[in-house]
Amino acid sequence: MIYLDHAATTRVRAEVRRAMAPALDSVFGNPSSAHAGGRAARALVDAARDQVAAALGARAREIVFTGGGSEADNLALRGVAQAQGERPGHLVVSAIEHEAVLETARALTDAGWALTVLPVDGAGRVDPAALAPALRKDTALVSVMLASNEVGTVQPVAELARVTREHSRALFHTDATQALGKVPIDVAALGVDLLTLSAHKVYGPKGVGALYVRRGVALRPQVTGGGQERTRRSGTENVPGIVGLGVAATLAAAEQASEQPRQRALCDRLRALVLAGVPSALATGAEGAGRLGNFATFAFPDVPGDLLLVRLDQAGVLASAGSACASGSVAPSHVLLAMGLPPTVAAGGLRCTVGRETTEAEIDRAAAAVVEAVRALRAPVPA
Amino acid sequence: MIYLDHAATTRVRAEVRRAMAPALDSVFGNPSSAHAGGRAARALVDAARDQVAAALGARAREIVFTGGGSEADNLALRGVAQAQGERPGHLVVSAIEHEAVLETARALTDAGWALTVLPVDGAGRVDPAALAPALRKDTALVSVMLASNEVGTVQPVAELARVTREHSRALFHTDATQALGKVPIDVAALGVDLLTLSAHKVYGPKGVGALYVRRGVALRPQVTGGGQERTRRSGTENVPGIVGLGVAATLAAAEQASEQPRQRALCDRLRALVLAGVPSALATGAEGAGRLGNFATFAFPDVPGDLLLVRLDQAGVLASAGSACASGSVAPSHVLLAMGLPPTVAAGGLRCTVGRETTEAEIDRAAAAVVEAVRALRAPVPA
Repeated sequence: MIYLDHAATTRVRAEVRRAMAPALDSVFGNPSSAHAGGRAARALVDAARDQVAAALGARAREIVFTGGGSEADNLALRGVAQAQGERPGHLVVSAIEHEAVLETARALTDAGWALTVLPVDGAGRVDPAALAPALRKDTALVSVMLASNEVGTVQPVAELARVTREHSRALFHTDATQALGKVPIDVAALGVDLLTLSAHKVYGPKGVGALYVRRGVALRPQVTGGGQERTRRSGTENVPGIVGLGVAATLAAAEQASEQPRQRALCDRLRALVLAGVPSALATGAEGAGRLGNFATFAFPDVPGDLLLVRLDQAGVLASAGSACASGSVAPSHVLLAMGLPPTVAAGGLRCTVGRETTEAEIDRAAAAVVEAVRALRAPVPA
Repeated sequence: MIYLDHAATTRVRAEVRRAMAPALDSVFGNPSSAHAGGRAARALVDAARDQVAAALGARAREIVFTGGGSEADNLALRGVAQAQGERPGHLVVSAIEHEAVLETARALTDAGWALTVLPVDGAGRVDPAALAPALRKDTALVSVMLASNEVGTVQPVAELARVTREHSRALFHTDATQALGKVPIDVAALGVDLLTLSAHKVYGPKGVGALYVRRGVALRPQVTGGGQERTRRSGTENVPGIVGLGVAATLAAAEQASEQPRQRALCDRLRALVLAGVPSALATGAEGAGRLGNFATFAFPDVPGDLLLVRLDQAGVLASAGSACASGSVAPSHVLLAMGLPPTVAAGGLRCTVGRETTEAEIDRAAAAVVEAVRALRAPVPA
């Protein structure tokens, strides 16, 4: 098996599993318990909060642990919107956001919120010049992801956040789920007010994420109860998961500079091999540093993406059409369509995302499998 | 250390850790991925869903996995309320609900919902006769927990659900977080529409729970995005956690009949020893089968509960005042106050909750420690 779907999820790395083990066994207390068993668990949560904060250049108090990236996105959008008071306002998101942002923004329109969806260019990049005219007096939040989960395009978030600050009173949220460990992240340099993280994209466990909430940002909690996470997210803390996120985020940030050039070289090799083998193929997304180093994405005109994936799966190459979250859907990717690809091309999308264990030999075998599968799907059907 | 705080949380049992291990390692795929790696993860989630459904007498499609019991309670209350349409209606909860229900019901009153809080008797039991008069034409939901997390009192949920059905069109939700594995649970026999579970109270991992949602019940999702859990709760599934919940729920249901009499005997012994050693002590909660077998709860008049817990902690006995979720609060338990205890008595509450590893020798040592701590706290301060 050649696993080229690291943007969908990753295997929990050994360092993370080892760190989680005590919290699944001896340090099993409820962090809210005042006794020794509770305090030991609380210490693990505190240490993980420090780790996540350090990975982002944030303060520990600004980190809210959640049940995952989608919950963090929902908390950012719903929490900011509902904290604005009775009267619905205006939101701005990009056309290529993850469903957890797009669907949540659409759900808020049911409650009377106005929504502007920013377009992207052919590389999947939001144009900062398009943002200023979209901002209104009642814009409460702008949400643009740090890097696309479908084509890996890095967005000009620092610039978008600056435009937002200069032209409105809106807060700025970015979903950094795909970007963590791939590009440097510093919340102050980015100038964002809220930032979403997920553990399982960076070799941490599923079921845990975090939302950075800049000090002073008003946020309505979405899960109420015992008042954990400084009342911003109630529920007994997922101690093993939080410990895993802390270690995974630390390692992702620490290894980014050394690991990403290697992964980028693998992806450049994959792109070159596939484009050489299938001359009509398009490499989607941005070029060079405009794209996360672990993404190699394609569109094959007149090739059904779902059948391509089945063939690759049979050949032992695990990849995806777009985001895993939207799999099962037969519609072409909303991201590729927003980038201006015709539906017949967007329907033939392929996302290959490499990881820390991916080797050059795997890339060569995967490229051959892709080329062979595309050729087979295009071969004339025998009469 | 003698751990008598099993109602706060439990240690993940070995069978559960073993079952979770593959999902933290080799079976790491995203269940939404169509390829072999995704299908293997999906199969684990499906099997766990079958297990949880079987433990409740429910259908697999009626189980929604969440990030824990608090999230499940929130989904039940907010989800039902928001699915009723534009006009706010009426909710009924008991005075002794967990904060995840009580605080959420109060939060809904900010959105215009009317709320009736049902009283309890001296044993902490809701009187079914008080329910019918509380029901209104616009009552959307009644939520009464299956067993109290503070004193273990089992509520007459089947009767309350029947009264609700006969006198209103309201749905019925019960939080069964403490009850699972302690009393038999069958959603059809109980006649409930929604039921909350949590894994970490039954030797499963923290960070995962479930909401039973009877077929046909309309529920507004609280986390939107990729559409997982049949659109009722988006976000990549916490596969290891869900696997752990499946096994933990299965074992809890299977061992309940054999294990609970043993735990009840331990708690009866603890009660007898403490009441003999401290004649002024009150045993709180209901008697016999009216109380979960793993609860032994007390109130010590004129003894500061927080200082009592500190002394017990120093003696190696880990217990709690009320719920762990409310620890850190200095206010007397809302549950003991609702049961009619005066504040000076309610402030001296002690909750001891035993588990599958608790021994008779531990009980005898814990009883001696409690008696000694109470006597020391009551001793006249030397002049």
